[in-house]
Amino acid sequence: MPDSLPPDSVGLVAPRTLHFDQPLTLACGQTLPNWDLVIETYGTLNESHSNAVLICHALSGHHHAAGYHSMEDRKPGWWDTCIGPGKPIDTNRFFVVSLNNLGGCHGSTGPTSTNPETGQPYGPDFPVITVKDWVHSQAMLADQLGIECWAAVVGGSLGGMQALQWSLSYPDRLRHAVVIASTPRLSAQNIAFNEVARRAITSDADFHGGRYHEHDTLPRNGLMLARMVGHITYLSDASMGEKFGRELRDQAYQFGYDAEFQVESYLRYQGERFSESFDANTYLLMTRALDYFDPAYDAGNDLAKAMTAASCEFLVLSFSTDWRFTPARSRELVDAMIAAQRKVSYVEIDAPWGHDAFLIPTPRYTEVFTAYMGRVAREVGQ
Amino acid sequence: MPDSLPPDSVGLVAPRTLHFDQPLTLACGQTLPNWDLVIETYGTLNESHSNAVLICHALSGHHHAAGYHSMEDRKPGWWDTCIGPGKPIDTNRFFVVSLNNLGGCHGSTGPTSTNPETGQPYGPDFPVITVKDWVHSQAMLADQLGIECWAAVVGGSLGGMQALQWSLSYPDRLRHAVVIASTPRLSAQNIAFNEVARRAITSDADFHGGRYHEHDTLPRNGLMLARMVGHITYLSDASMGEKFGRELRDQAYQFGYDAEFQVESYLRYQGERFSESFDANTYLLMTRALDYFDPAYDAGNDLAKAMTAASCEFLVLSFSTDWRFTPARSRELVDAMIAAQRKVSYVEIDAPWGHDAFLIPTPRYTEVFTAYMGRVAREVGQ
Repeated sequence: MPDSLPPDSVGLVAPRTLHFDQPLTLACGQTLPNWDLVIETYGTLNESHSNAVLICHALSGHHHAAGYHSMEDRKPGWWDTCIGPGKPIDTNRFFVVSLNNLGGCHGSTGPTSTNPETGQPYGPDFPVITVKDWVHSQAMLADQLGIECWAAVVGGSLGGMQALQWSLSYPDRLRHAVVIASTPRLSAQNIAFNEVARRAITSDADFHGGRYHEHDTLPRNGLMLARMVGHITYLSDASMGEKFGRELRDQAYQFGYDAEFQVESYLRYQGERFSESFDANTYLLMTRALDYFDPAYDAGNDLAKAMTAASCEFLVLSFSTDWRFTPARSRELVDAMIAAQRKVSYVEIDAPWGHDAFLIPTPRYTEVFTAYMGRVAREVGQ
Repeated sequence: MPDSLPPDSVGLVAPRTLHFDQPLTLACGQTLPNWDLVIETYGTLNESHSNAVLICHALSGHHHAAGYHSMEDRKPGWWDTCIGPGKPIDTNRFFVVSLNNLGGCHGSTGPTSTNPETGQPYGPDFPVITVKDWVHSQAMLADQLGIECWAAVVGGSLGGMQALQWSLSYPDRLRHAVVIASTPRLSAQNIAFNEVARRAITSDADFHGGRYHEHDTLPRNGLMLARMVGHITYLSDASMGEKFGRELRDQAYQFGYDAEFQVESYLRYQGERFSESFDANTYLLMTRALDYFDPAYDAGNDLAKAMTAASCEFLVLSFSTDWRFTPARSRELVDAMIAAQRKVSYVEIDAPWGHDAFLIPTPRYTEVFTAYMGRVAREVGQ
């Protein structure tokens, strides 16, 4: 590994694209005749193919979870704090697979891909994808990689929903599901925030019913607003206060509507940057996947009954100041697992950073996560 | 009182417009040469003019706080639950004054008024108004009404900030300040939500830098989004869940981006209605007044020191599920009052409705509010 990358990094990594010729029938009834997934892998698959860990990403995530794409790369993958040699998901012991989900905008088949039927980008015609659909596609990915059974499927937030769905859709194909900062389903308030984000995008004059590329434009304002709203819900009131307080950009009040407080310019900057790099149709799709996720729905709204389909072991983690998916939502899930007599470890981590805490290493979080994954590794002989 | 109006209503009421020829110099440095305030009054001013109560409104409020404008009127004023004969602010005992604040869009001088210098609507040229400015204008209103000292100044949310500012700006002109569901200043998160709302408005293609009237249009989408965001913060997660849960508009998932859950169509409807009736420039102004309010600022960020300027008595009320201005923010204020050796009664009311709880009568809230105002009435001989 080159000297200038941190020693506990997986180092230089490169994504690759896997093609799938098998049609995938989706929950909405539509079928993708063929499709691509972009993945990265870290570590080495053992001989028995028993040490594979699947990483599922959240709303705006992608396949690049760890390491660096070049020596000039200043930012590692989005979960580099948790994936690497000696880290909770230890790449000396595990073979880690990370993908960009279907419907994404980082290379996997999604709204920006070419619709084989028209020769044009799918755009708004790309079908709505559900968490179940993702898990289905991830199972076909496992087939292609020769992985019969994951040592663990791991995810935070929307990624945690995928880990949970894995335990229900393919109970024999994973040993452990690690569900972090997640929820068994969105609350009305969660859906309401998603709806504001979607409405911001679809009401942008540059959205053009989702065909903005044909108009050579992007719904930048809408996407910016969507991201600003999202960003507020990822942080805690306290952490925003700690980070920005009521700090002014200038020395005195300007008595105007330009960015006046630090938090305003920060949000605008983050929103603008995001609006240049993320696809609006993908954002709609990802938020809808969140809304629809509801494993209890098919079991007569009885989550405990739904959980009887699972046979893996669970680690559930929540964070004290997460108000997007509160610890109470994780406890709801844990209670259902216990009622269904499944094996579950649950820890609520004290951390001030709200929902984003699942991306930030804190001693207790790292300790618990490392200990659990260490047990998983030993179970598969690593 | 006509038979068909509720017997505990103040009955039919009519607004009136007061004109002020005295120039008003604002915190921003600009001066309004002359200006109007629209007010309503309920009850009778006693001979000694000692029984007057001022009602200060919140972000989207106005002068019509109680009673009905016509026999056909189906909705009473916005605080009819608390103002009327036998209600907490008992109009058999008090003379109640309610106004639309400067910068508003319900008849008082604001962005939709004609700028005397140009003969055109002020629009975006209307100056930024602060809570201090409002209190200044309300003191001039008191002068015009012949009220030397209010029995009480009362308000919820942004209205509570005005009641608090009264105690600091004119300590000798009020006996009591009632500060409900308010905060001594916004948190970074509060400002962030306001910024999203403002940005939604100003980035609407129909905003035209605030000169939408000149373009014969309205920034409806932006205002709708602003209201949707606001609305979410006024309700609690639990009350939204209670009201909407995950109820679908149709029987089954549609797998699309139209309103699918009840909460989505509710928010869209509320937002659309609001966007037709409220002025966008006023919305910007009101949110900025919230941001700027910070009485501790001038006292070296020492709220207790700031509170030493006050001499009235205080009632502070907060609501358990209010996450916009949490009970902790009220306690911060109460602690500062106690440190400054002021007289304060504080009650946290258990109520499930979030910030909106201050508009909803619950037994404990009504009891406490009635008892306190009863004491105020007796003090002024009513």
